[in-house]
Amino acid sequence: MTTVVVVGGDAAGATAASTAKRLDPSLDVVMLERGPDTSYSACGIPYWVSGDVRSSEKLVARSPDEHRRRGIDVRTGSTATAIDTSGRSVEINSHEHISYDRLLVATGGRPRRPPIPGIERAFGVQTLDDARRLQSHLARVTPRMAVVAGGGYIGLEMAEAFIKRGIETHLVERSPHVMGTLDAEMAELVEEALRNEGVELHLETEVREVHDDRVITSAGEHPAEVVVLGLGSGPETTLGEAAGLALGAGDAFVTDDRMATGTEAAWAAGDCAEVFHRVAGRRVSIQLGTVANKAGRVAGMNMAGGHARFPGVVGTAVSKICRYEVARTGLSTSECDRYGFDGVAVTIAATTRAGYYPGSGPISVRLIGDRADGRLLGGQIVGVEGAAKRIDVVATALWNRMMVEEVVDLDLSYAPPFSSVWDPVQIAARELLKEL
Amino acid sequence: MTTVVVVGGDAAGATAASTAKRLDPSLDVVMLERGPDTSYSACGIPYWVSGDVRSSEKLVARSPDEHRRRGIDVRTGSTATAIDTSGRSVEINSHEHISYDRLLVATGGRPRRPPIPGIERAFGVQTLDDARRLQSHLARVTPRMAVVAGGGYIGLEMAEAFIKRGIETHLVERSPHVMGTLDAEMAELVEEALRNEGVELHLETEVREVHDDRVITSAGEHPAEVVVLGLGSGPETTLGEAAGLALGAGDAFVTDDRMATGTEAAWAAGDCAEVFHRVAGRRVSIQLGTVANKAGRVAGMNMAGGHARFPGVVGTAVSKICRYEVARTGLSTSECDRYGFDGVAVTIAATTRAGYYPGSGPISVRLIGDRADGRLLGGQIVGVEGAAKRIDVVATALWNRMMVEEVVDLDLSYAPPFSSVWDPVQIAARELLKEL
Repeated sequence: MTTVVVVGGDAAGATAASTAKRLDPSLDVVMLERGPDTSYSACGIPYWVSGDVRSSEKLVARSPDEHRRRGIDVRTGSTATAIDTSGRSVEINSHEHISYDRLLVATGGRPRRPPIPGIERAFGVQTLDDARRLQSHLARVTPRMAVVAGGGYIGLEMAEAFIKRGIETHLVERSPHVMGTLDAEMAELVEEALRNEGVELHLETEVREVHDDRVITSAGEHPAEVVVLGLGSGPETTLGEAAGLALGAGDAFVTDDRMATGTEAAWAAGDCAEVFHRVAGRRVSIQLGTVANKAGRVAGMNMAGGHARFPGVVGTAVSKICRYEVARTGLSTSECDRYGFDGVAVTIAATTRAGYYPGSGPISVRLIGDRADGRLLGGQIVGVEGAAKRIDVVATALWNRMMVEEVVDLDLSYAPPFSSVWDPVQIAARELLKEL
Repeated sequence: MTTVVVVGGDAAGATAASTAKRLDPSLDVVMLERGPDTSYSACGIPYWVSGDVRSSEKLVARSPDEHRRRGIDVRTGSTATAIDTSGRSVEINSHEHISYDRLLVATGGRPRRPPIPGIERAFGVQTLDDARRLQSHLARVTPRMAVVAGGGYIGLEMAEAFIKRGIETHLVERSPHVMGTLDAEMAELVEEALRNEGVELHLETEVREVHDDRVITSAGEHPAEVVVLGLGSGPETTLGEAAGLALGAGDAFVTDDRMATGTEAAWAAGDCAEVFHRVAGRRVSIQLGTVANKAGRVAGMNMAGGHARFPGVVGTAVSKICRYEVARTGLSTSECDRYGFDGVAVTIAATTRAGYYPGSGPISVRLIGDRADGRLLGGQIVGVEGAAKRIDVVATALWNRMMVEEVVDLDLSYAPPFSSVWDPVQIAARELLKEL
């Protein structure tokens, strides 16, 4: 019998385990998960904290028992403490050992924690267990003031969740703008929306110390009974690195397009593994559930003896921040600079529906093209509706390496409740074409 | 001085005139329009009739005076009554003549009217003037009962508008289903929504006679103080045909990819002109504002001496029908049969947001692929939100001739308020892949 051991039971791990078992039911698939949960939506945590979602159970797509019913040997409370890649075994909870024929390392990500005094008091919101700890804390101390350290997606979503709970919320961000994945012009729209909702923004400010009842920043002191980390996350690679797996882009595990690590019989997928960025033309480290699911599916197919390829990502992400849908894909202006592209950007303001149709609201579209050859390089959309699924048009165009000129011609849908007759993306493409 | 004469002042005509003048301000651009309006949104008419839009002026994107301020010689109330393509002149209102160096025929579409007694009593809703006549009639007779003859997009939108005005509405459709552009399974969802809203559907029923106070159908008689045509429209080609312009697909004017007609110095664009269908691989006749605008832009660029190409359409259309966004692109199953493709279809039911996120609702996605080579051929989406912009992902995929397999891998956006972690389009693609 062939044994597949999967380390990690969330997006990438659980998808890989399920896929492998489905494709080859003869496989013995063991999934090790250090926490109590499998296949949960970490992206849903802010909505549980805000109260929009009633219980943590709702965030679980597939529980350990459901996986077990599908034939997977799920072991929760099982931390993989060491991997012996030559002897092909995994040590569990420092004492038990399990042999594998094929291994997937899907250890996920870990929230960034700046090395400052008291940072261990700040709550991460990476796992459902993190979220439960935060919820207990909130129930126990019913805070009047909160500090969110860092203005990435999760930080902004948590800030909004706290505001919804009636907690005065301060967001502290080191950079001049929140959301480093957006260009400044678009980030400013988001900042305005956050301020309108009541979030106190402290930009170009650093957190210096975290205490039980206050946070000290480079600009002063804020009383705060709860502090949350919103600095984004990086790959969690401690286990695999100790076992000799090579690190690549952004210190994530090196992988090829089959999600193989280069170490024999070992695959990696999810937040801990690098993937190919089709626009940048290089491998990158990205921590996103969609990517983890897709890469996990490919790893699972290959661990079941298949020959699946993961064709890469284009850098798509979306979030709902207060009144806005905030979406991005491809390269931002600063990424163009970093990767050596001569990016030209335009930003246009349009309406989400035909101007005369009731409920029409603002939407801003920024498109970036390559001065060298006229190719589309990236897009960012901030709007009161229709930004999320509109970014997918840009993502699909990037996937296919479309020219800006071609985007103008795309046969996109139009009816007054959904768009102007030239879709805002195409209005932006027309303007960008003039600049190129 | 070079004179450009444009016959028709709505989407294609006005876009072409504006584009030509903008690119070459030395051109003398004359735009002939038989009605009083230019550049209006015919698609917005149902929303004026329903009361969602307050006045017809709101539907005008650019009035004759606004065009004049941009240097275009707009002549409203000017019907082109003949064209002499060898002498290069256009006869206006049967007595005046104007010479041209370059001509655009943009005579638009005309609503289909079955040849039955009293059909002249039925209102078209093709032009703003048509809509004004209908509105006067409604104001005068305040009907209690309405009949809509035909279940195309415009028919359904008008039926909904009448219901909103409190008019009992009967929709009579000859085929077994409304919306011939959808496959039966998807059309049934729309029918259910219409019935829930109070529209009386009479399928497989023909209108036989139209009287002032009633309509006689193959199934009986309905009292009705207003009858509207909802049978869709075809190309209006009478003028150009008499002048010797060749007719092609669907009896629209033959055009090449520069929107030239083959007759010297004569271009055609909009509802009256054929365009290339990239998925079907042939020229087709399509009556849609988006296509008219895009083809008009290309014609305008070429009439100004440019060398623009119109790369074609993929058959995208969307409408809001009661609670649903109803969208389609590419080939339907019946179009696959007609054009000789071995189409394989799957339909999946999903949710518009993460299942646990408040406000999540149903969305159905149907995808069609080519059994011969695994290529995506078409898609249809009916959902309470997110169908309109989601079809654009399918349209962009079709534009780029993507394989179904690739659609599964697309890097589409995900956050709980907008989608499940696998977008419904990708869930459908995965299912379709199994069938192929």
